[in-house]
Amino acid sequence: MKTYLDCIPCFVRQALGASRRLTDDVAVQETILRELIKCMSKLDLNKPPPYMAREIYRLIGEIVGKSDPFEEIKDQSNKIVLDLYPKLKQIIEDSSDPFVTATKLAIAGNVIDYGAKHDFDVNDIQRFADEAIHAQIPSEAMESFRRSVSQAENILYIGDNAGEIVFDRLLIEWLLPKEIIFVVRGAPIINDITMVDAEKTGMSNLVPIIDSGSDMPGIMLEMCSKTFKEAYERADLVIAKGMGNYETLSEEMKHIFFLLKVKCSVAADHTGHHIGSIIIKKNTEV
Amino acid sequence: MKTYLDCIPCFVRQALGASRRLTDDVAVQETILRELIKCMSKLDLNKPPPYMAREIYRLIGEIVGKSDPFEEIKDQSNKIVLDLYPKLKQIIEDSSDPFVTATKLAIAGNVIDYGAKHDFDVNDIQRFADEAIHAQIPSEAMESFRRSVSQAENILYIGDNAGEIVFDRLLIEWLLPKEIIFVVRGAPIINDITMVDAEKTGMSNLVPIIDSGSDMPGIMLEMCSKTFKEAYERADLVIAKGMGNYETLSEEMKHIFFLLKVKCSVAADHTGHHIGSIIIKKNTEV
Repeated sequence: MKTYLDCIPCFVRQALGASRRLTDDVAVQETILRELIKCMSKLDLNKPPPYMAREIYRLIGEIVGKSDPFEEIKDQSNKIVLDLYPKLKQIIEDSSDPFVTATKLAIAGNVIDYGAKHDFDVNDIQRFADEAIHAQIPSEAMESFRRSVSQAENILYIGDNAGEIVFDRLLIEWLLPKEIIFVVRGAPIINDITMVDAEKTGMSNLVPIIDSGSDMPGIMLEMCSKTFKEAYERADLVIAKGMGNYETLSEEMKHIFFLLKVKCSVAADHTGHHIGSIIIKKNTEV
Repeated sequence: MKTYLDCIPCFVRQALGASRRLTDDVAVQETILRELIKCMSKLDLNKPPPYMAREIYRLIGEIVGKSDPFEEIKDQSNKIVLDLYPKLKQIIEDSSDPFVTATKLAIAGNVIDYGAKHDFDVNDIQRFADEAIHAQIPSEAMESFRRSVSQAENILYIGDNAGEIVFDRLLIEWLLPKEIIFVVRGAPIINDITMVDAEKTGMSNLVPIIDSGSDMPGIMLEMCSKTFKEAYERADLVIAKGMGNYETLSEEMKHIFFLLKVKCSVAADHTGHHIGSIIIKKNTEV
């Protein structure tokens, strides 16, 4: 998916939101916005939005002098959802269709996003989970996902954000003993997960973890490691979480199910779903 | 008032909104955004927001090849409110306190703004008028405004947008036979009024009209004509409509009443009123 003109004001808004989250120093915030404007002059609309997002958040990291500016925020998100974990696990086990509930919760977890939704408050996660359980997902999409999972022999599950990974863990626990590899980013970018988050949230005790080999907040195959690309080729089903993975992989000729919350007008237009929807989208190229 | 960091994403969003309003050609829209980004690199935060807005909308005009790109939109706004004029006049005359009703309606008219609120639909104006009549304005501010108007001998009334000028006419008709000069912009910018709008809406038959001598969507005195500055000096009361006039004049040592609708978070912080409020604000320096 290419970058749309609507992404441009959104990038600027995101950068301002991120700069405020990371520093109280208005002079630094101004520097970030001024450098961002310079950086935007190189914008290539043929690249997917995460490509520019990566440039922006790397720039912010350089200016605030932190290689992982969202580290504390990621730890906090992981901790909050880990505290909810027993309750969420119980909800899944008690439900009439645990696969559906676990899937809905995994998508709901995608609300924890400091890129597209910089004003998100992680303390609201319980409310989002409750809403997700009652959300309607077309049964055709859900049953297609269930069938694909059931038939798959090698699943590659591409994660997205900190906190959200605990919801992914709940779904993966339900999918085991399927053969599943879980993918994290190769280096910190926004609040996307890296190997550290897989370890801190118990995911690494559950399934093998690989990283993408890239700090892209999405998956641009040409920028990924050989290890990742081999795992991707081998997988007969890819589960890809969140907008960044959708935006970078939606045109790939591969059996992919995207599980995401639609957070902006561009994704809404592209997916055909309203902002705020939690959706399961099968790669239409397959 | 200076330009705040929050104005930066808003400028980009405005430029995209305006470009879409003025052309369906996505390539032209992209050119506008790219040129805007270059233009923003010169941004001076010590200048008020209308200074940059002027640069942006001039740039848009150059790219779409029109010296007055909002001409049709302005004509449409004037026409829609002129159609409502008899009804609005009746509402004022039938009300228990016509001065208050006319003032509230004049402020309500400030909703017609293609800068700050690019998604505004002029057809909603009747609804905004109804809301305004029922809106609460602190009686202290209203009575202070009433006293000042009653005591003033030379009123300078600085208008803002097309369409809105018809609401201004209703208030001015109620204030006559006071000595009032009405001010328009010196050249087209966004949907701000010029001499043409004063003529098309009957304002020029009512009171003398002067222009500011500048195409600023606000009043930066150093950029105004000698004629305007003399009228400004001579006035013992200035009534200034809308955010652009507020943002440029709020720090002047002059007896000014600002009548505006608060349309963004920056103006909300600066005025101390919620977004959406219709307010009367006396210059605190006086």
